[in-house]
Amino acid sequence: MTESTKYLLSEDRMPKAWYNLAADLPGPVPPPVHPGTGQPMGPEDLAPLFPMGVLEQEASTERWIDIPEPVRDVYRLWRPSPLVRARRLEAALDTPAKIFFKYEGVSPAGSHKPNSAVAQAFYNKQEGVKRLVTETGAGQWGSSLAFAGNLFGLTVEVYMVRISFNQKPYRRALMETYGATCIPSPSPNTAAGRAILETNPDSNGSLGIAISEAVELAASRDDTKYALGSVLNHVCLHQTVIGEEAMLQMEIADADPDIVIGCVGGGSNFAGLAFPYMREKMNGKAVRCIGVEPTSCPTLTKGPMAYDFGDTGKLTPLMKMHTLGSNFMPPGTHAGGLRYHGMAPMVSQAMEHGLMEARAYQQTECFAAAVQFAREEGIVPAPESSHAIKAVIDEALRCKAEGKAETILFNLSGHGHFDMQAYMDYFAGKMTDTPFDDAALQASLETLPKVAV
Amino acid sequence: MTESTKYLLSEDRMPKAWYNLAADLPGPVPPPVHPGTGQPMGPEDLAPLFPMGVLEQEASTERWIDIPEPVRDVYRLWRPSPLVRARRLEAALDTPAKIFFKYEGVSPAGSHKPNSAVAQAFYNKQEGVKRLVTETGAGQWGSSLAFAGNLFGLTVEVYMVRISFNQKPYRRALMETYGATCIPSPSPNTAAGRAILETNPDSNGSLGIAISEAVELAASRDDTKYALGSVLNHVCLHQTVIGEEAMLQMEIADADPDIVIGCVGGGSNFAGLAFPYMREKMNGKAVRCIGVEPTSCPTLTKGPMAYDFGDTGKLTPLMKMHTLGSNFMPPGTHAGGLRYHGMAPMVSQAMEHGLMEARAYQQTECFAAAVQFAREEGIVPAPESSHAIKAVIDEALRCKAEGKAETILFNLSGHGHFDMQAYMDYFAGKMTDTPFDDAALQASLETLPKVAV
Repeated sequence: MTESTKYLLSEDRMPKAWYNLAADLPGPVPPPVHPGTGQPMGPEDLAPLFPMGVLEQEASTERWIDIPEPVRDVYRLWRPSPLVRARRLEAALDTPAKIFFKYEGVSPAGSHKPNSAVAQAFYNKQEGVKRLVTETGAGQWGSSLAFAGNLFGLTVEVYMVRISFNQKPYRRALMETYGATCIPSPSPNTAAGRAILETNPDSNGSLGIAISEAVELAASRDDTKYALGSVLNHVCLHQTVIGEEAMLQMEIADADPDIVIGCVGGGSNFAGLAFPYMREKMNGKAVRCIGVEPTSCPTLTKGPMAYDFGDTGKLTPLMKMHTLGSNFMPPGTHAGGLRYHGMAPMVSQAMEHGLMEARAYQQTECFAAAVQFAREEGIVPAPESSHAIKAVIDEALRCKAEGKAETILFNLSGHGHFDMQAYMDYFAGKMTDTPFDDAALQASLETLPKVAV
Repeated sequence: MTESTKYLLSEDRMPKAWYNLAADLPGPVPPPVHPGTGQPMGPEDLAPLFPMGVLEQEASTERWIDIPEPVRDVYRLWRPSPLVRARRLEAALDTPAKIFFKYEGVSPAGSHKPNSAVAQAFYNKQEGVKRLVTETGAGQWGSSLAFAGNLFGLTVEVYMVRISFNQKPYRRALMETYGATCIPSPSPNTAAGRAILETNPDSNGSLGIAISEAVELAASRDDTKYALGSVLNHVCLHQTVIGEEAMLQMEIADADPDIVIGCVGGGSNFAGLAFPYMREKMNGKAVRCIGVEPTSCPTLTKGPMAYDFGDTGKLTPLMKMHTLGSNFMPPGTHAGGLRYHGMAPMVSQAMEHGLMEARAYQQTECFAAAVQFAREEGIVPAPESSHAIKAVIDEALRCKAEGKAETILFNLSGHGHFDMQAYMDYFAGKMTDTPFDDAALQASLETLPKVAV
């Protein structure tokens, strides 16, 4: 009898609640603090930017938070996502390890991002918001919010870093297909944008500038809110639907992971798969959780734990997290979603409490792993997800060397259909690895805000 | 209780046999004939180009043909594909009709094409072939054969029409990711290519030239065969896994289609979904099968039934089919996969026997339908599939006008991730509809080969 490749879950078994790791961590997740006063900031302080439904989740220590039925109803368009056994990759590696992956690329926008975008759109709609404004770099979050906002009748405006706006027209076209407006940042629509354009009309923009524009617009209009696609507690919370589903599917597969792997940028796709397993780890289960980041932006492997701004523009509250300093400018790489100076405070806490480990890889070795994966399993991974795959292959080869039949589960967070330029550069030998600039990191860390908390 | 959105089928229920409509048609499917002699051609005549496993299927009148286990094993990477109820589209149209779609875009290459590519790669491998050569226009077939060939250890060379090679670098990158070589056609690798390049070094190429190059290479080397992605009987056969799965899933959904819809270019995705339902129609079931083509290339709605060449280069055997004449040059549209002058002989026979109907739409109305679909259901359709969607919406609106709760099933044959330029042109108002040139059609039909058969 042939063994199964995919482990599907029927819609009626889709999780009914998100899991909140904050309920089980050995210590509290430090709250955001005001950069001027050093005072903790609560939901009311952030109310101009986010709806209360989201802010309550941000501060919650409840273990389970119900997924509203309208959100589950949209999830049904692609969820439960498949759990797949990578049998061909196992055979190619000649490893005794079992390799499973949770495939989030089946979502309409092609990644895990809609899991939170749909929830955020729902809470905004429920509180009478008419318009969502956000920023996007590579475009994954922008297209996810465009998709989600449209379903709830919200106007969505995405400020896209100008250089990406020009280089990634297909991502922009996807946002427009979902009915959103995509504006190159810096733009003349905001004071922040106009200030940049006055001195540099040809500015390529940056994620920091785009955040400033989006936040300015959200704060200035009553009917408008802001939405963020990673880092914050509520985003990690929404992504846990991935891990809760995976647990049910691994049960169907009659397997249990010894190792859980995800790539980390802001931290949310890793959190989504790994937090439920960290709960089991705290309950005594032997499981290693590994976050994989790029060598060029080694937040967990080289960044200290500190209070820092969430943005390069230094407009946000301070968050306690692993950080390279908000001044740190990672070199341009193809995994745009992993080029973030900070890390989700909850993931940072998980690191502090020994619930996870972290490692870093260069991008060319990640692309080599992604190509091997595509040739065995068919799916062309997003550049971000390729980091997880590189770690999976290394662990599977270790299992081979040690003769251990361990079970590995990873999050294939998205497909690479909108990132084929990166593959072209890789095949053309144009992709390079930059040695890490330790001096730049030290200089950046010296500018960390000095706040007594 | 919430009703289901997706109807999944477990892998152990994946069909074990393809369905061959030739077994049930009221008359025989006319064989291909030699253009010089007018004599029927059998498997042995085509053996230089195709493996015998495939040629036996081409001429078979067996009702069921077993799907080899290694083919089913590759199918498991994405099959059974989901059957989805388009509840949001139904609500947006305010129609009493139930709309279901079979989603073939979940395959690694993003369309239904791998259903046949995997089978063809298997039979070639089994007969000791080392290398497959094919042509591709938009790139769907080329990337599917690249994927399939790699899994069976075959070298794959794809001759891609030069203008597409230059305009669609991402499709080319996908083929290279799967390990295939993609060569712009005309190329200096063949006599056919060199002849063109001598007179026109900057030739944009054409599908006809690319076919000539691929066929020349396959015929000239013992270890090399050719592979075709649509039109032929064996390709339609392989695609019937779509319809056989859909039948099982519609049963799970407790629904039965009154109307089955697919877009038609060469005819294979429509055949794949509709042929099993035509069998039921011949057994007395009331079901309408509708093939939808572009107004710019109206093979079924304006082309007569005649013996004609399969290619513009007039190199292939003659096939009896609906045709616009192999000299007919449809205007450039974004649904490249539907720009074919002929039609699968089996689909043409189904038309002759009254088993199906056909209709044609302009591309802008199809893109409007595709955008509406994407905003309700999330999935961005391939330009080809948008033709099916336009017909579905029209039928659903007819049901509304007539107050009839009919059940509509269509084939969403692929996603549009590699076709976003078409959406950009649509949003920019750059997409136009060309009035059909009846005079050009008449001129083309006058050059149909005069063969007494």
